[in-house]
Amino acid sequence: MNTTHPAERILLGPGPSPVPARVLRALGAPTLGHLDPQYLAIMDETCERLRQVFRTRNPLTFPVSGTGMAGMECLAVNLIEPGDEVIVGVNGVFGGRMKDVMERCGATVHALEAPWGEVFSLDQVAAALKAHPKSRIVALVQAETSTGALQSLEGMADLVHGAGALFLVDAVTSLGGHELRVDDWGIDAIYSGTQKCLSCPPGLSPVSFGERALARMDARKSKPQSWYLDVSMLRKYYLAGAGAGGGRVYHHTAPINMTYALNEALAIVLEEGLDARIARHAAAHQRLRAGLEAMGLSYIPKHSLHTLNCIGIPAGADDLKVRRRLLDEYGIEIGAGLGVMAGKAWRIGLMGHGATTRNVDLVLTALREVLK
Amino acid sequence: MNTTHPAERILLGPGPSPVPARVLRALGAPTLGHLDPQYLAIMDETCERLRQVFRTRNPLTFPVSGTGMAGMECLAVNLIEPGDEVIVGVNGVFGGRMKDVMERCGATVHALEAPWGEVFSLDQVAAALKAHPKSRIVALVQAETSTGALQSLEGMADLVHGAGALFLVDAVTSLGGHELRVDDWGIDAIYSGTQKCLSCPPGLSPVSFGERALARMDARKSKPQSWYLDVSMLRKYYLAGAGAGGGRVYHHTAPINMTYALNEALAIVLEEGLDARIARHAAAHQRLRAGLEAMGLSYIPKHSLHTLNCIGIPAGADDLKVRRRLLDEYGIEIGAGLGVMAGKAWRIGLMGHGATTRNVDLVLTALREVLK
Repeated sequence: MNTTHPAERILLGPGPSPVPARVLRALGAPTLGHLDPQYLAIMDETCERLRQVFRTRNPLTFPVSGTGMAGMECLAVNLIEPGDEVIVGVNGVFGGRMKDVMERCGATVHALEAPWGEVFSLDQVAAALKAHPKSRIVALVQAETSTGALQSLEGMADLVHGAGALFLVDAVTSLGGHELRVDDWGIDAIYSGTQKCLSCPPGLSPVSFGERALARMDARKSKPQSWYLDVSMLRKYYLAGAGAGGGRVYHHTAPINMTYALNEALAIVLEEGLDARIARHAAAHQRLRAGLEAMGLSYIPKHSLHTLNCIGIPAGADDLKVRRRLLDEYGIEIGAGLGVMAGKAWRIGLMGHGATTRNVDLVLTALREVLK
Repeated sequence: MNTTHPAERILLGPGPSPVPARVLRALGAPTLGHLDPQYLAIMDETCERLRQVFRTRNPLTFPVSGTGMAGMECLAVNLIEPGDEVIVGVNGVFGGRMKDVMERCGATVHALEAPWGEVFSLDQVAAALKAHPKSRIVALVQAETSTGALQSLEGMADLVHGAGALFLVDAVTSLGGHELRVDDWGIDAIYSGTQKCLSCPPGLSPVSFGERALARMDARKSKPQSWYLDVSMLRKYYLAGAGAGGGRVYHHTAPINMTYALNEALAIVLEEGLDARIARHAAAHQRLRAGLEAMGLSYIPKHSLHTLNCIGIPAGADDLKVRRRLLDEYGIEIGAGLGVMAGKAWRIGLMGHGATTRNVDLVLTALREVLK
């Protein structure tokens, strides 16, 4: 196996998504020090671009130095104290992980469950809050990457805030590809990943914390169990002037080159415009859906993401063989089923730079060929 | 401030160190999926190269998906259970951080303290073990980046193992630049960073766990408090055949492009040869030391690292102004003092690709000029 020259795949799985040449070039730019004034300017610009993409004015918006799961853990360790009750929507792998992560923080997690592929209604969330009135957090996954289901978030925050809880959202597979309005929708804390609809390589996890979340953190009685993800220290580095004397306080060595790549990826998102980008993802999804359904393939979730298309493996098709042929003969990666869907589903991602007519028609053509 | 084209600095601070063009090129190679057979081959090669650089046969040797501090936290969350007693050598910022990280894991930390710039003797460690015989871990920093002190590790493991404890080491600023023999020296678990003597951009933390450490983890009564850093799951991804059915189990999306860069950086280390590389660091240090002392500057630690030179700021020199002039006029970054040494010390790093005669003579010339 050649380990020197990675193949030029077309990444149509659940992420990473295809990375534009501009972003790869930015990634390879000369490394600066993490306290260099020029690097700090790049980081500030990255955070400001993240605010625009999250549609938020939250000052505390920055990329956590780890992949998406580090972002999930960052929210949990900072916003949960041992003994807290929380409600987590579990309708796939990532809701289940959130439950696990939060339990490791000492939370009592009330899992609001739905069958895989389904989502939660306002009524279900209201009922959960009524059943568990002491809950301090409600957490939902907007884009469940394991099932391809799109969770509607509008109206949720009123219920959650009415019960005195914080509203947390996993937007790993939606940020930059689906409608997402952190401020308008009253989201108190949110995390995402770089390698999905932002089309940057994996390695960073954009997060944003609103005022309610900050107040919760400021009122903590105990230190967060993670030093690496402790926002009370991270904010003194990421926010200019938050350190003593108006400066910045070194916390850890930020992943410099990954920040360059994210900054460039965000520039591309904003040049296209969020509305146009979201419309492009919708159009690509509809084109793929029409093609797949014409082939007799069917979607598993009722409310499908545009960014990730989860379809049942047709009877008679060999899961591994089909994916291996797509990879070997076409250089196309699609995703296997995850969790209970292993062996039963394929996941076709149309994310960021990958959500194009060219890719849709190519993957349909290739699938028709290997399913013959 | 230009945020598009990072300046070409000569990085002679405490890290990041100068990154070779080969490594930057590898970083910008096409992104593969994290389960792509070619990516898995690259990852396996990276882990094997890490074993060679750590001088270990430990199968469980891999890069944690975060910067050096994530590696420190990875060791702590996996090897400590609430209530454990541990001994940590604290003679600078990073020993102090280790204490903090371990306390957040519920450990009772016995800090073995020494003045900043000094190191610990075998007798001191033996006495600490005698005073705290229930200690389950002894942790030392080989290269204390805040003071520039080099901690000798030979013989320590016998003492530590004799008391039934595990021997943990921070090798962030030594791996690839100083003598380090994980197996010969009986080190049970170790972490490092990519952006120091390996001359790869920051973003990954190489770690290695030996048999004793594995046994300790396997005997845990509770889950590690971090999901992201839980080695019981990470090993099923990083070790081929460790998952059910001999396969690999997806945990999180690995930082693909950073792995390319690390793999290339390690190739460069092994092409040079560890012994030659360590000798080059020693020679660069001696040349710098002779030059600095001829200028009347003096070293703070008695046993100085070769990779990081911590010197007192001479009377009358303006700390900020000198560093700013080096950056603006020469494009050279050196480090400020950290912790109690802020405003009192400079830290000149000669790490990896940066440890050259050219850089030594350049920084001496520049310092002479700005200190005039």
